[in-house]
Amino acid sequence: MNKTEKLPGGVTAAAGFQAGTASAGIKYKLKRDIALIYSTVPAVAAGVFTTNRVKAAPVLVSMRRIAGGKAQAIVVNSGNANACNGEQGERDALTMAAAAAGALGIPEELVLVASTGVIGQKMPMDKVLPGILEAAGCMSSEGGAMAAEAIMTTDTVPKEAALQIYLGGKVVTVGGMAKGSGMIHPNMATLLCFITTDAAISSTCLSRALKYAVSNSFNLITVDRDTSTNDMAVILANGLAGNPEIVREDDDYLLFRDALTDVCTRLAIDLVRDGEGATKLIQVEVRNALTLEDARLAARAVAGSNLVKAAIFGRDANWGRVLCAAGYSGANFEPEKVDIFLGEEQVARNGCSLEFSEERAMNILDKDTVRIVLDFKMGDCSATAWGCDLTYDYVRINGDYRT
Amino acid sequence: MNKTEKLPGGVTAAAGFQAGTASAGIKYKLKRDIALIYSTVPAVAAGVFTTNRVKAAPVLVSMRRIAGGKAQAIVVNSGNANACNGEQGERDALTMAAAAAGALGIPEELVLVASTGVIGQKMPMDKVLPGILEAAGCMSSEGGAMAAEAIMTTDTVPKEAALQIYLGGKVVTVGGMAKGSGMIHPNMATLLCFITTDAAISSTCLSRALKYAVSNSFNLITVDRDTSTNDMAVILANGLAGNPEIVREDDDYLLFRDALTDVCTRLAIDLVRDGEGATKLIQVEVRNALTLEDARLAARAVAGSNLVKAAIFGRDANWGRVLCAAGYSGANFEPEKVDIFLGEEQVARNGCSLEFSEERAMNILDKDTVRIVLDFKMGDCSATAWGCDLTYDYVRINGDYRT
Repeated sequence: MNKTEKLPGGVTAAAGFQAGTASAGIKYKLKRDIALIYSTVPAVAAGVFTTNRVKAAPVLVSMRRIAGGKAQAIVVNSGNANACNGEQGERDALTMAAAAAGALGIPEELVLVASTGVIGQKMPMDKVLPGILEAAGCMSSEGGAMAAEAIMTTDTVPKEAALQIYLGGKVVTVGGMAKGSGMIHPNMATLLCFITTDAAISSTCLSRALKYAVSNSFNLITVDRDTSTNDMAVILANGLAGNPEIVREDDDYLLFRDALTDVCTRLAIDLVRDGEGATKLIQVEVRNALTLEDARLAARAVAGSNLVKAAIFGRDANWGRVLCAAGYSGANFEPEKVDIFLGEEQVARNGCSLEFSEERAMNILDKDTVRIVLDFKMGDCSATAWGCDLTYDYVRINGDYRT
Repeated sequence: MNKTEKLPGGVTAAAGFQAGTASAGIKYKLKRDIALIYSTVPAVAAGVFTTNRVKAAPVLVSMRRIAGGKAQAIVVNSGNANACNGEQGERDALTMAAAAAGALGIPEELVLVASTGVIGQKMPMDKVLPGILEAAGCMSSEGGAMAAEAIMTTDTVPKEAALQIYLGGKVVTVGGMAKGSGMIHPNMATLLCFITTDAAISSTCLSRALKYAVSNSFNLITVDRDTSTNDMAVILANGLAGNPEIVREDDDYLLFRDALTDVCTRLAIDLVRDGEGATKLIQVEVRNALTLEDARLAARAVAGSNLVKAAIFGRDANWGRVLCAAGYSGANFEPEKVDIFLGEEQVARNGCSLEFSEERAMNILDKDTVRIVLDFKMGDCSATAWGCDLTYDYVRINGDYRT
């Protein structure tokens, strides 16, 4: 009975997980801006974190704590990134964790911290601490949706995904939430993403599965090629599903890994679709590359090119920019072999222009999702990357973010 | 008498150089779109070319020819890049060179070719060839300014620079022109740039001086992080100044190299200032880095960050994005040591926010040129990079470029 079922819900979909939120007024008066995620029992934990040399205080704290392989709660705020705040930032992150631990009655070391928002402003602890207490006072297994809302910044919609699989006759749920709209160009880590599961799984296997899932989802999306100081993707696995513990890379592991990848991919695509100012999702598929790395490099470069993004916004079938972006991506390929398709319409063959119907191309560019396919015709490796168009609204949103 | 003097003029400022132009109607009806540059005697030639794996046909032809170290003319068109046109593209580039050679009465092998414009459309040779003949019919040592106009695409102003130095008692002139406004993120080569000089210099020294000049000018500017398929910077040195030939890295070489760098830097800054949609020049200085490469990486990343660019457009003193961009640049530095200045206003100390006057910051951001300084406080290497703000007009211009 190895089937996968999509579920509504997110971070509280799995057994034993609760969430609580509060509106602490960190940046905006009435917006929810504190979320607390909690497992009724200690959970196995794994995470991937930003590769940016400038790491926010909560990233540094959470990286240290997750090294132990265990966690039971995550306290998250939006509105302030607590980045570039020096030692005070670190003290504030630790204080946030301590407040959450106290309110939930669990050891401090089992609390992770995450923040997102403006960089380089002191955390308003006078607002944050009461908010954490308030959130802890309303923990509920129905709290996932509000938590997804609480972590939003320039996001216009919350992002949640969940699904169920069957492992050893037991129903196992994997659910998550993510935020991120700008400053998105993950590299080995990403934005904020929190995933919970009731699967029983070893720390090593959980960590491996998360890395696989992230490299096949969040690491293949880009909004603006800016890698944030605060990115993290964290998973808590509390074992309450009662499945035989996954301790090696067997069939159960693969099933779990793929379910996790599915959840991450859905969240990743939702993030890009909600990219700052975006009106269209751009899906770039590179086929038949010599190596997976070549395919990924080229797909990401095309999805991230300002010129490709602006052309898609303007509904201009400017495929030359697509090949140009692949050309500077660092991927190994032969330009004179490449076929390019816009949706079903072939626009280039063997690296050369092809007569194509501008009308059909325009119809394809009118859709919400624009698919671009590059066939390298060299090997058998493929990758898909996702981006969004570059619009006037991206400029507007980022022209006055702090104010 | 080792002084440097700035001159008006560009590619025909040096002795023995002429230029002619024509309006061939390649993309627009009345715009000049063919330029022919000619030295009355064969010249020593050197060039640097795009690192994009996808190279336009004229780039491939010019790379082969310049390997011989000699050239006497360059034929350039705007409006069509002759990129991604397969074997036909190569034949067309060779035909353009042959037509120019025939009209000027010089060997075909001494003619270089360059194109800029839309990628992936066949070159309209029925318009281009008569245009080349027309241009050859009006060669003049006064033709530089019109040539600078003829190579423009989305540029709004022509870019020229020239200066004179004294070598061995002789006046030596170095002059050049460049075009480029979008798809600018050079790497070891750049946009279109043509420089002429009457200096007597060996092929090896010329080549070395050009590489130095380009890496200190064009390789430190960025408009949109898109590296074009057609970039090239070419220099012709015809020796007519009569100076003792420069054949080694002596004082004369250094004087010449620095003059060349000066011309390239002025052209590079003009390019960025005229970046697509740009309203401001962003000058990013990284000081006291451990290595020159660290300084350059960080300066370029900050100058190229969409988020920094949009913040500058919106006059938002969002210095957190500056440190964030340095953080993902790959440069080696310690975030907790970095000081950041906006103009004269210090906005961060030791990687931390500093109380600063938002009003003074706003005044600085109101200027045409916005200077950002990062002091790494680690070593003694510095670099400056130049970029421009990201505006609504960049999106508008690139949303409907082909049409």
